[in-house]
Amino acid sequence: MAEQQLLEKYAELALKTGVNLQKDQALVINSSIEGADFTRIVARKAYELGAKNVHINWTDDELTLLKFEHAPEEVLTNIPSWQVEKHLDFAKDGAALLAIRSTNPDLLKDIDPAKVAKANKASGEAMKEFRQYTMNDRIAWSIISIPTGDWAQKIFPEKSREDAIESLWDSIFKIVRVDKEDPVAAWEKHNQLLHQARTYLNKKAYRALVFKSEGTDIRFELPEGHIWKGGSAETTGGVTFNPNMPTEEVFTVPHKYGVNGKVTAKKPLVYGGNMIDGFSLTFKDGKVVDFEAEKGYDTLKHLLDTDEGASRLGELALVPHASPISQSGLIFYNTLFDENASCHIALGKAYPTNVEGGSDMNEAELDKHGINDSLTHVDFMIGSAELDIDGETADGNLEPVFRQGAWAIDFNE
Amino acid sequence: MAEQQLLEKYAELALKTGVNLQKDQALVINSSIEGADFTRIVARKAYELGAKNVHINWTDDELTLLKFEHAPEEVLTNIPSWQVEKHLDFAKDGAALLAIRSTNPDLLKDIDPAKVAKANKASGEAMKEFRQYTMNDRIAWSIISIPTGDWAQKIFPEKSREDAIESLWDSIFKIVRVDKEDPVAAWEKHNQLLHQARTYLNKKAYRALVFKSEGTDIRFELPEGHIWKGGSAETTGGVTFNPNMPTEEVFTVPHKYGVNGKVTAKKPLVYGGNMIDGFSLTFKDGKVVDFEAEKGYDTLKHLLDTDEGASRLGELALVPHASPISQSGLIFYNTLFDENASCHIALGKAYPTNVEGGSDMNEAELDKHGINDSLTHVDFMIGSAELDIDGETADGNLEPVFRQGAWAIDFNE
Ligand SMILES: [Zn+2]
Ligand SMILES: [Zn+2]
Ligand SMILES: [Zn+2]
Ligand SMILES: [Zn+2]
Repeated sequence: MAEQQLLEKYAELALKTGVNLQKDQALVINSSIEGADFTRIVARKAYELGAKNVHINWTDDELTLLKFEHAPEEVLTNIPSWQVEKHLDFAKDGAALLAIRSTNPDLLKDIDPAKVAKANKASGEAMKEFRQYTMNDRIAWSIISIPTGDWAQKIFPEKSREDAIESLWDSIFKIVRVDKEDPVAAWEKHNQLLHQARTYLNKKAYRALVFKSEGTDIRFELPEGHIWKGGSAETTGGVTFNPNMPTEEVFTVPHKYGVNGKVTAKKPLVYGGNMIDGFSLTFKDGKVVDFEAEKGYDTLKHLLDTDEGASRLGELALVPHASPISQSGLIFYNTLFDENASCHIALGKAYPTNVEGGSDMNEAELDKHGINDSLTHVDFMIGSAELDIDGETADGNLEPVFRQGAWAIDFNE
Repeated sequence: MAEQQLLEKYAELALKTGVNLQKDQALVINSSIEGADFTRIVARKAYELGAKNVHINWTDDELTLLKFEHAPEEVLTNIPSWQVEKHLDFAKDGAALLAIRSTNPDLLKDIDPAKVAKANKASGEAMKEFRQYTMNDRIAWSIISIPTGDWAQKIFPEKSREDAIESLWDSIFKIVRVDKEDPVAAWEKHNQLLHQARTYLNKKAYRALVFKSEGTDIRFELPEGHIWKGGSAETTGGVTFNPNMPTEEVFTVPHKYGVNGKVTAKKPLVYGGNMIDGFSLTFKDGKVVDFEAEKGYDTLKHLLDTDEGASRLGELALVPHASPISQSGLIFYNTLFDENASCHIALGKAYPTNVEGGSDMNEAELDKHGINDSLTHVDFMIGSAELDIDGETADGNLEPVFRQGAWAIDFNE
């Protein structure tokens, strides 16, 4: 277990900078039982900060695995209405949502990927209404991570379980700036830098971005009125929050029908407890028309088959290869970390907030604007030290955006 | 932690003899996080026995306490409809319910008893429909206990936390016959003995029982058609199950309007995280008209004030003073154990199954038959080595039932 003082600082950061908990607000926490010690600290601090209620949705890896091993498909795909109602109840009451993730990347590796895909799809369908609250920033939400033994040993296979957990805590504390004297202030400064980048890109309003590196040659058209976001976000009610901690990305939405070329992933992707690695996708008019994978081909296939939108893109994110996470030299097998070490794109649903007026558009309008919809949203990493990115201006000129994995722009100019 | 082999046997006993889990049935488990290791064993075994789904309602003492300390009354008394729906959903699907209790008897000792009472009442009201399923044996349910550190140290205050937990495991294993070679068979034999006693009392059909010991002189009228139960029960669907493990009692329902005299409790009662001790109650025509308590007077007052039925009785149970739990010489501060060491009565709701045709009666009919209703049902212990009980026959004769805390009857005659 990590030092008590750092855990307290981390809990406070998650509440203040993460969900920006307000007095008399309810807080919903998703946590594993293995993380109970930390979660209890968060709950106590939340009440101290004036939460009127802290509700915890406990999960347990071992029970999840048992269920996938033994329960019949109709149980795995039946998301009871009380479960949906629970989430909606809290959302309608304006609760903040803190997800404390700590999964084992290999948890479901021996489970038939088709089974996992069906369960994920059922959950995605049932939670459609609730997802509007998070993906349209109607409530404040934040995702953070804490170690489990299995996850830590996946990252540090040569270490003992205890040492691996300790090392992962150290890495996380560093990456989310909990080791700084005043983490909340450090995050404010960090957010300013991300806001500079997104302001620059919003002013440029590129028609498209072109990515080139080994195995990658692809043009992402950007919809008219697309918005670059990154760092802190704001709820429709005006509360500033940080959806992801860590976060190093600025991101927007690629055009649903305007992606052409081939991308190769540069890091493994853990999806639904299964790993996909050494994979590339070929797009035509926004849709995946071909793909290959050295590992997890079936899982990738099931992911792409989730629904119509799962084989189109919903996010395009820029992260310098020299980001603190990248510099740690570690592969985390956890999207929250790995996506913030690398430029990435996401299959599936786009954030409606990434386009002018998107929060108020219905599905048909979003489609017309080139904004993708799906039950799923899965990021994967395509950045590297060799990646070059050009921005295509309205008159067709190309301007350097990234060179050799780093910003080609000096935002202070 | 106790020996793995004994834990496995205990889990198996709870599933086979406790809820008698059927193939393709769902199982709902209520468990504390502190008991996760044991609960995981139960879940694994349940799936191995053919459960189609194991759903766990996790609780955590620390979070419960935090909530009572910080949350406003409207949060504490608001039982959301999804929570009710969750329980009803499983009940309607015929799920079995296993409660693995492991609470700290002093958990809420610093919380205003009025607050606790209001929260309990709200939950009692919200769960009224669901309670029909358990109290009318429409589903199979069972309550068992496992140690927590706080609870174990309350029983063994002179021991280290670890040793206290170890000792409590040992006591529990002994009391629930897990130390026997074949616990399931041992329970069958035990149930036969309890069935002998209840058959005898059912044949006798006493008009009343009269209890006499130090501080106690009271006559309990028994309703016409009252039924003595004890040991295993049967669901309306015909599945044999054991609602409590341990259980040493045979019990019936005293007449709602026919209790007169004074009883003195012989053991402390833990109610809603608070202790009531050294208390006695005076009844007139079934209702508490006077009471005193050396400790927890306010908690007792709030309990009696829960509703109209909380100051009348719903259960009368006979347990020889020489029961295995009593012989352990321990006070468990846990009703499941303490009630099975002593004759006891319960304030509040009666089991409709304790009267001929009761399961099909509505509230008015139950009242007419002298069967009490309430949001609450709280047992407290009135037995001792000095207790004498007489049975009053239809023609007014008195027959010895208990002498000096033991059966005055030889069931094998
Ligand atoms: Zn992203
Ligand atoms: Zn994403
Ligand atoms: Zn009883
Ligand atoms: Zn009882």
